[in-house]
Amino acid sequence: MKTKKIPALDVHAMEIAKERQDNLTKVKGSLGILEDLSIKIAGITGNPSPEIKDKVIITMVGDHGVTEEGVSAYPSEVTAQMVYNFLNGGAAINVLARHVGARHVLVDMGVAANMDFTNTNTRVFVDKKIAYGTANMAKEPAMAYEDAKRSIETGMEIIEHEADRGMDIVGMGDMGIGNTTASSAIVAVLTGESIGKVTGRGTGIDEVGFERKVREIGEAIRINKPNKKDPIDVLAKVGGFEIGGMAGAMLEAASRRIPVVIDGLISGAAALIAYELDHAVKDYMIAAHRSVEIGHAVTLDYIGLNPLLALGMRLGEGTGAALGISIVEAACKILNEMATFDEAGVSKKI
Amino acid sequence: MKTKKIPALDVHAMEIAKERQDNLTKVKGSLGILEDLSIKIAGITGNPSPEIKDKVIITMVGDHGVTEEGVSAYPSEVTAQMVYNFLNGGAAINVLARHVGARHVLVDMGVAANMDFTNTNTRVFVDKKIAYGTANMAKEPAMAYEDAKRSIETGMEIIEHEADRGMDIVGMGDMGIGNTTASSAIVAVLTGESIGKVTGRGTGIDEVGFERKVREIGEAIRINKPNKKDPIDVLAKVGGFEIGGMAGAMLEAASRRIPVVIDGLISGAAALIAYELDHAVKDYMIAAHRSVEIGHAVTLDYIGLNPLLALGMRLGEGTGAALGISIVEAACKILNEMATFDEAGVSKKI
Repeated sequence: MKTKKIPALDVHAMEIAKERQDNLTKVKGSLGILEDLSIKIAGITGNPSPEIKDKVIITMVGDHGVTEEGVSAYPSEVTAQMVYNFLNGGAAINVLARHVGARHVLVDMGVAANMDFTNTNTRVFVDKKIAYGTANMAKEPAMAYEDAKRSIETGMEIIEHEADRGMDIVGMGDMGIGNTTASSAIVAVLTGESIGKVTGRGTGIDEVGFERKVREIGEAIRINKPNKKDPIDVLAKVGGFEIGGMAGAMLEAASRRIPVVIDGLISGAAALIAYELDHAVKDYMIAAHRSVEIGHAVTLDYIGLNPLLALGMRLGEGTGAALGISIVEAACKILNEMATFDEAGVSKKI
Repeated sequence: MKTKKIPALDVHAMEIAKERQDNLTKVKGSLGILEDLSIKIAGITGNPSPEIKDKVIITMVGDHGVTEEGVSAYPSEVTAQMVYNFLNGGAAINVLARHVGARHVLVDMGVAANMDFTNTNTRVFVDKKIAYGTANMAKEPAMAYEDAKRSIETGMEIIEHEADRGMDIVGMGDMGIGNTTASSAIVAVLTGESIGKVTGRGTGIDEVGFERKVREIGEAIRINKPNKKDPIDVLAKVGGFEIGGMAGAMLEAASRRIPVVIDGLISGAAALIAYELDHAVKDYMIAAHRSVEIGHAVTLDYIGLNPLLALGMRLGEGTGAALGISIVEAACKILNEMATFDEAGVSKKI
């Protein structure tokens, strides 16, 4: 599949940013990760004084046929119900997007219901439904290879459209009952880690449900034989429409020099697919937090990303990404707004 | 010394907050520490729906006579120079206070210079200078016992005054060349940990300077014999005016049911003094982050606080507290602004 070229980081912008960081009125290095982050954003954007103004969080939504195996503690109707909750502003991501001043965009990539969006603000909700949920991966491929490609291309289109409205940074989140099952399967296949080490409790299943979840992931991999050399095949066999959408969005954002903030396990699985399609995307990724879902840490380690936060979160939707975006914004403000020793007339080291 | 009574947490408010958290449209517990934080703030404030609107960061400033022993990489004039930098809005804490929407208050507790504050906004800068810096603790007590008490009482007065202007949460920060030396001494005495295990590089001294710093802390403790049973004696012998001020502010805030956000090592040393004066203050404390300064983790462990963030920071001024305040605010917004399952018409667990 054809993706746009992702440019190398702008080393010159990073050097200028680093020099300024080292002359700001603080002990060199004393803002730790904030300093590194600001320099990384300079490299990503090509701007030695990057400003994070237009913040966007995109939540991609899709249903999963594998829920019929009883892998989730919630019924799959909850996916559609949560879409209405998002549109009414009552979900966690709405609260946190408002808190950090980010614009929230919701994309139906494959909700298994006809949604009533009369009077819905199309600047908030985007209908890109590929199908009414994936097929049950424990019995057959989750989707056709062509639909996997289409989900990635759809994610790219979303960024093309949203970037035109202003996008200095984008956080990628998800919603979809059953999608930790699909994500753990993707992570197991692409990282080569055992299923038990990348599977968690998702929405909070009990011990019996957890054993069933691990078993069904194993079954899905056994019968579908995803080819780990072809990330699109993996997405098709054991993935989800929202996961493909996020992967495409990440690749497109990177090609446009827009920093991409990764959320939890599902966003991480999408990052893994994007990474396997083009390793260059990694430089544009910022891991917002370390989720409680154990497959997430495996994913971040595999790509080589260090999470900013560890707040015991595992909600998805982009909630971790929202908090991460605020940290990135703070880092860039430090770089731009602090005075240097010379400007402030403060003595340097003895 | 007489401190005001610190009330117990409001268990009833916490129960109501917990019940609401468990009915919000998310998997129970999936926002991890954010959920716990919101319940803690309910208990602190006695309000089951606490709102964090008036955010305040107080940076207390003082000089340290022990700098004449060469324990810092910067000359002590930097303390006064940084006060002007704060007043001009160019320091890290100015940037981060603006980022999180907090009011910044700067208190001269003992800067070793006559400051020119003509035309300075007295709502930003408060002159409470007790002396022109402490005495050199490596040769004599840092301050008289009476001045230690006075520094704590001054901190209380600051909160009395500032709380009247509105204060839903307060972050405590510091500035003062030499104050990691005093703070490590306090932490060593009060926790009983060895000096080597609670002393770091401060503003970035080299190996020789570091050995000198450890030696001078040992000398200060040896000649002054601070009585660990009397935290005011410890403050007087090896402390600082800004440290006493912060300790008093923490006690007063707790007595008024205002959550107190602890910053790094120096703020932590003040928290330790406050804690030894009245263990009840602990319930009102939130540790914003884990500083790179190794004595900080020892302090938080001793009091029993888990830091929210670990961003490799060690700058002080209240910079970590600022980011922590934003997390607390987010936690309270989640509690107040999210819809419940019933409100949103979302199905509960199967």
